[in-house]
This record gives sequence, C-alpha cells and structure tokens, in this order.
Amino acid sequence: MRLSNYFLPILKENPSEAKIKSHQLMLRSGMIRQSSSGIYSWLPLGFKVLKNIEKIVREEQNKAGAIELLMPTIQSADIWKESGRYDDYGKEMLRIKDRQDRDLLYGPTNEELITQIFKDNVRSYKNLPLILYHIQWKFRDEIRPRFGVMRCREFLMKDTYSFDISKQDAVNSYKKMFLSYLKTFEKLELKAIPMQASTGPIGGDLSHEFIILTDTGESEVFLDKNLLKIDIKNIGYSEKNTSEIIEKYSKFYSATDEKYNKTEFDNLVKKENQLHTKGIEVGHIFYFGDKYSKSLKALINSKEGKNINPQMGSYGIGISRLPAAIIEAKYNNQFMKWPKSITPFQVAIINLGKNGDDADKKSNEIYQILKINHFDPLLDDTSESPSSKFKNFDLIGIPYQIIIGTKMNKDEYEFKELGKDKVILSKDEIVNRLKEIYNSDK
Amino acid sequence: MRLSNYFLPILKENPSEAKIKSHQLMLRSGMIRQSSSGIYSWLPLGFKVLKNIEKIVREEQNKAGAIELLMPTIQSADIWKESGRYDDYGKEMLRIKDRQDRDLLYGPTNEELITQIFKDNVRSYKNLPLILYHIQWKFRDEIRPRFGVMRCREFLMKDTYSFDISKQDAVNSYKKMFLSYLKTFEKLELKAIPMQASTGPIGGDLSHEFIILTDTGESEVFLDKNLLKIDIKNIGYSEKNTSEIIEKYSKFYSATDEKYNKTEFDNLVKKENQLHTKGIEVGHIFYFGDKYSKSLKALINSKEGKNINPQMGSYGIGISRLPAAIIEAKYNNQFMKWPKSITPFQVAIINLGKNGDDADKKSNEIYQILKINHFDPLLDDTSESPSSKFKNFDLIGIPYQIIIGTKMNKDEYEFKELGKDKVILSKDEIVNRLKEIYNSDK
Repeated sequence: MRLSNYFLPILKENPSEAKIKSHQLMLRSGMIRQSSSGIYSWLPLGFKVLKNIEKIVREEQNKAGAIELLMPTIQSADIWKESGRYDDYGKEMLRIKDRQDRDLLYGPTNEELITQIFKDNVRSYKNLPLILYHIQWKFRDEIRPRFGVMRCREFLMKDTYSFDISKQDAVNSYKKMFLSYLKTFEKLELKAIPMQASTGPIGGDLSHEFIILTDTGESEVFLDKNLLKIDIKNIGYSEKNTSEIIEKYSKFYSATDEKYNKTEFDNLVKKENQLHTKGIEVGHIFYFGDKYSKSLKALINSKEGKNINPQMGSYGIGISRLPAAIIEAKYNNQFMKWPKSITPFQVAIINLGKNGDDADKKSNEIYQILKINHFDPLLDDTSESPSSKFKNFDLIGIPYQIIIGTKMNKDEYEFKELGKDKVILSKDEIVNRLKEIYNSDK
Repeated sequence: MRLSNYFLPILKENPSEAKIKSHQLMLRSGMIRQSSSGIYSWLPLGFKVLKNIEKIVREEQNKAGAIELLMPTIQSADIWKESGRYDDYGKEMLRIKDRQDRDLLYGPTNEELITQIFKDNVRSYKNLPLILYHIQWKFRDEIRPRFGVMRCREFLMKDTYSFDISKQDAVNSYKKMFLSYLKTFEKLELKAIPMQASTGPIGGDLSHEFIILTDTGESEVFLDKNLLKIDIKNIGYSEKNTSEIIEKYSKFYSATDEKYNKTEFDNLVKKENQLHTKGIEVGHIFYFGDKYSKSLKALINSKEGKNINPQMGSYGIGISRLPAAIIEAKYNNQFMKWPKSITPFQVAIINLGKNGDDADKKSNEIYQILKINHFDPLLDDTSESPSSKFKNFDLIGIPYQIIIGTKMNKDEYEFKELGKDKVILSKDEIVNRLKEIYNSDK
C-alpha cells in the first residue's frame, strides 16, 4: 500500500479523552475513532490488526478441533427468560423492542442460543464431543465505558461452547481449550497466565482467567516466576498432553489482586521467584455442567439409551480488546512494535527523497519487488519531513523498516528492526531477510 | 474435515416454512437455522460459503482501490437526525434506547457514519479520491421477513463509499465500482446484469441495480441477449476501461418488471435477442453528490483553497443474500453444485466401505494425501447407507466427488464432477486433476 492512497489519519497530539497509553496510541496512529459513547469504528490500520488477531485465534481453535459457525447479534428474549438470565443481567443488557413489540436483545454472550441450536439439531451421543465457536460482535451497556476498546460497549468476542456426554469428557474439552488459549497468546507474543477464577454470572464450578502480563494494566498480579518457564511448544491436543499442561500450571501460585493473599504468596513462593506486576484479562474459560442444557431442556440420547443433559463449557477471548492489551504490553512510550504475527503491514518503506529523485525511484523499486514477492509493505510516499515520517512510524509500529535516504549508493538500503541498530543491505538481501522473518513459522 | 467430527445437521424432508428452493436447500443441507423471526444462525457449512463469498467480494474491492475499515452495528441517532433520515426511515429502522436513555439504532446503512468519519479525519483534496468500504451486519425490521436469508432482518452487507472533489471524479469512482461489481459476480459464476434503477431512500441521480439471472427469482427481467456477450476479463481499472464498459452496457435494453415497457422492448431489441427470465437483486450502486456531505457539513479544502462538500457515492452488495441467490441460479432440484470459487469444501470423499475394510482404508489414505496437498476435502466416514450418502451430497453441493466402493482395484478411484460422468483415476491423477481445477485461476 502507498501511504498517499491510504486512509491513515495520524494525530500529532495526545487526545485529552484518552487516559491510558493503548487508547492514546490507537487514536494517534489512526487505528480507531469513537462514533458514540463506548462504540468505535476501526479505521484501516486498526482493522488490519483486528483481522490478523482474529485469524490467529481462528487457526488455533480449528487446530484444537473446534468448528466455526456464526450466531446473530440480535437474539430473542424468550430463551433468556427460559434460562432465567433475562432478569439477572440487569442494565448491562441492551434490550430492544421490534415493530411487533417483541422483546429482543443485543447478545452480551451466547450460552442460551448455542444451547438452543444444539437442542434442535443434535440427538445422539455419537455426535459428541462437539466444540462450536463463533466470532461475533457483542454489546454490554457499560455504565462508564472507558479506556477505548478496552472497556467499550460494542466489542468483538470469540466464544466457544463445548458439549459432552459426561463430566469427564467435558473436563477434557476444557483442557483442550486451556491449551489452545496458551498457544493462541503465545502466537501473539504475549505472556498469558491462566489463573483460577470465580465463575460469576456464567455459573459453574471450574474456571480460569487468562491474564497477560503488562507494565501498565487494569489489575495487579502476583505469581511464581516458574509459570513463565512452562514450555507449550510442539505439544499436541492429546488427552495426556492437555492434562499434563493444566497440572503444570496448577502447581504454581498466581492471583490477581482480588484473590491475592500475602501470607499465602510468601509461604508458597520463594522470595526470588515472586513476581508482582500488572495484567489484563484477555480470556476466560468456564465449565458449568448442565446449567443451560437443563434449563433449556437440551437432551442427548446416551449409549445406554437414556436421555441426558449434555455437559457444557464456554470459552471466551476478547478479540477487540486484544489490540489494546498488546499495546499495553509492547508500547514502550517511544515506539510501538507489533508482533510480526499481527502487524498491520510487514515492512515500512520510508522514502526520504523527493518526487522523481534517486531515493524516490529506489523506494518504488523495492516496493514493487516486495509486492511481487508477496509481502505486504507500506510505502511512505508522502511529502512530509523525514523527522515527521519517523515519528509517525514509531506510532504505526510496523516492526521492520527500509529507510531510503538521498545519499545512499545504488543497491544499498538501510534495514532496521525497531529498537535495534540499522544494517546496510542490498535488495536481494532485504528480500531474503524478510523471507526468513515471515516464513520461519510456516 | 471428517463428517463424523463435523456439525452438519441434514434434514430428510423439506421444512414446511420454506417456500422457495434456496430456503429449502439451506435448511435441508444444514447451512442455516432461524433463531427468531427473520434472524438466522449460520451453521458451519453455510458459514464457510458466506466467508468464501466475503473473500471474493473483498479481493475485488481491494483491486479496485477501495480500502477496508469497519464501522459498528450500533449508531447514535444524532447523525441520522442531522441528515434528516431519522424520521424518513420509518419502522424498518430498529430503534433502541440505552441505559442513559440515549437514542441509538441498529444501522440499516452507513452513509451518515462514514460521512462523519470522513469529516473528522480528512481535510485536503490531496487525500481524494478516497473509496472506503466495510463488511458488517445490518438490520432492517421487515414487517414480513420471508424466504430465509433472502429477505431477513439481520443481514450482512458489503458497503462502499466514495469521496471525490468533483462530480466528474465521483463518476469515475462510480464506474470503477461498476466494473468491480461485474468482476465480483463473474468470479461467483453468476450472470449479473446492471440495470438503471431508481435511487429510492438513498437519493441521488445515477444508480444501477445488479440483477443476477435465475430460473426462479423475485422479479421478472427483460433484456437484450447482447448483454450476456460483453467480455470483462482482463480489463483493468483505468478510466478509459471503466468508461468503455459502462457505455457498452448502456447500449442494450434491460429492465425489471417495474420499469419494463413492452413497446419499448420490441422496438429496441430484435425478437431473436429478446430474453425474458427471472432475476434477483444482489447489488445496488448510487451516485448522490453532496446529499450527505452537505447535511452533515463535511468540507474539503480544494486545490484553489476553497472549502467544498465532497461528492459521494455508495455501493452495496448483499453478502448474506448471495448464498440464497446462487442457489436459485444453480440448484436444478436434483442436485446443488456450488461454484468452485465458494464451495464449502473442495472435494467430497464418499466412503462406501465399512470400518476397517479396504474402501475405508483407501478413503482415509486419499483424505490424508489431499490434506497434505493443501486441499480442503470432506470425508464421509459415517455409517449411513450409500444411497443416503449420495442424497446428502446432492444437497451439500460440493462440485467434485471421489467415490470409493468396495469392489474397486487398489489404486482406482471414481472421480466425478456433479452432473457429469464418472471417470476412474489413480491417486496421483486425482491430485493433479484437483490442482488443475483449483489452481487454474491463480
């Protein structure tokens, strides 16, 4: 993409309404704009990051055996009355009357609707285990929406629902999702710690929050550093593997400030292994048995010919919250550097020349070469000053830059990874370097 | 995907509520389920088709130079009051009050919001032309939702908005979208005819509907067969090309029943070129000048230093309606055959053997080989009878089948394109045939 053709409205100043650094950066780098209280439009740069995150979440869900479908945003109130949650949810639920005066609502979550779909379409134990997920916009009418997309009203979630014939099978599905969450966050280059959690309005008796560690963030977290050393690479989704992983994590102490107990922390964790930092919740998983299958009367024919309620779990990732959470984890107040798995563009080409001069020609040439090699570069072909260009790219956060000054030799380009020293490379070397960087995981 | 692990609830009978063949087929083949009046869940098979259509629409928008962003589903009523459409829209607009008693609505279209975004972020003629699009769920509170996803309440649209400094430039953007629509529908293997249209509630003075030709369908269409011969392959988006294409289409008669005039049709079209068939609207494009930029006070600094209202157009494709429209065009009441560009799976493997026999082993072997070669096959590994399997695959509509009977030689497989005769191929030949089929466009 050529910047002159793109839609990337950069702000020079920090907007006064933005109190945390992710909100500031997302506004300044033209990722989002608020359209009304707690409701945001995703401008092209933010949209690309959001879609890239969605893709990674989707890939790992599929690997874990979950199947994607899509439920609507608007639901009938009837199933919520049946489950008993219509009144429980209070004012956070956006309630709507249609032209026929029927009660609708904008789904804040989908346990009821997926249970209804399951009930209408699955009859036999032979179809289980079944893990279904969707990625859809949801709405919670927060009384005080704030911090940009971190606590907004319309937000994008991945939510997964598991159906099993027995508690034991359901716990296996739970463990699969547990591992898939760890893998998803690792691909996003985040340190995510699963912490035992209360189940809240979803219900149930087994639950973990996934908290990513950040310098700034909504809650304080206390944990044993051994948690950071657990290796999940190359671990597949067998029952044995997933059980081992959850056991490993359960061995070491971790808690958010809500559950933190100093005596316990000091007793269980050696001084040198104690880590006290901040964190942001980006995922939450629940096992809740037959809470919904019972109230909504979903029944499955068991091997023994009995009609029983399936055992369920639900598993959420806050996709639209993740760009902000990643910024809180990665932005060092000097420059943002997106993880290469989700960067909006793979490489920035910063043309310091003027229309038609050698630097300009070289910039266009390397741009074309990268396009032909299936890379996704952003070429700054605007007439802004060099210092302004560098400042903008520190906000945009593309992790690699090709800088093309006016005083370089013919086949010489400055190549820079953000935060590291520049090196001088030829065109071919740049192509090879980028291939190493971006194809290494495939 | 193995069918035994998938979620594909096939119905044996036509559901009584479905009056048209696309609605019947989508329910029977487990593509969709209604969750409440005019609101549908997309089950995994339907979801894959929907996503594939979305991908093709997106690719062609990008080629035409449009840039993707994402606006929210819920909008503030304020901008609609400013444009004057809040009252115009009547009961089709889903109006909502939030907990602070503010007026919100579920967007039925986005002219107001995109104009607001433009106004807040673009100042100079240098940033024009600018073509922005998004793909998002919309809501129209239809009084009588019917025909499944063809006329439902919550629906997925691609809508594009163009901003230009002059009417002439705006017409150029319009022509680009005109060509991109033709190319999009061609990739979907549809015959789409652009027809001059009334502008309705969007306003403006230039508008085309894109009608695809079907045997069954919502409206009658009358056209000159010469329209079917216009070749758009290999035509790029230059001003010259796009002008020529729109001129070619404008030369020949076409009309839906609303505008049809028999005398005119007979006078303008030779008897042997007259075509009278049915059609379904799948796209609609508008040029409407400064209707919204004026009412919402969006201003651009022109080259001459004047503040002027940009000239706008909007361009919609009904993405969630397209699977149904494609079924109306392609389903011959015996079997459905998805265009290969959007088929939910690339090839069906129909195992007629039993657990552990030679046919079963061969089925698993070819399944693995196809996966390794990056194809997306659906293996029917269930214990249903052969006749029931064939009936199901006639509904599912995967265009190619590998049929593995119990009496075949070791490296022999029946390979069949739906509606054509079977051929006997070896494993290698199947892989090569599928490569020819699916990589030929790349």
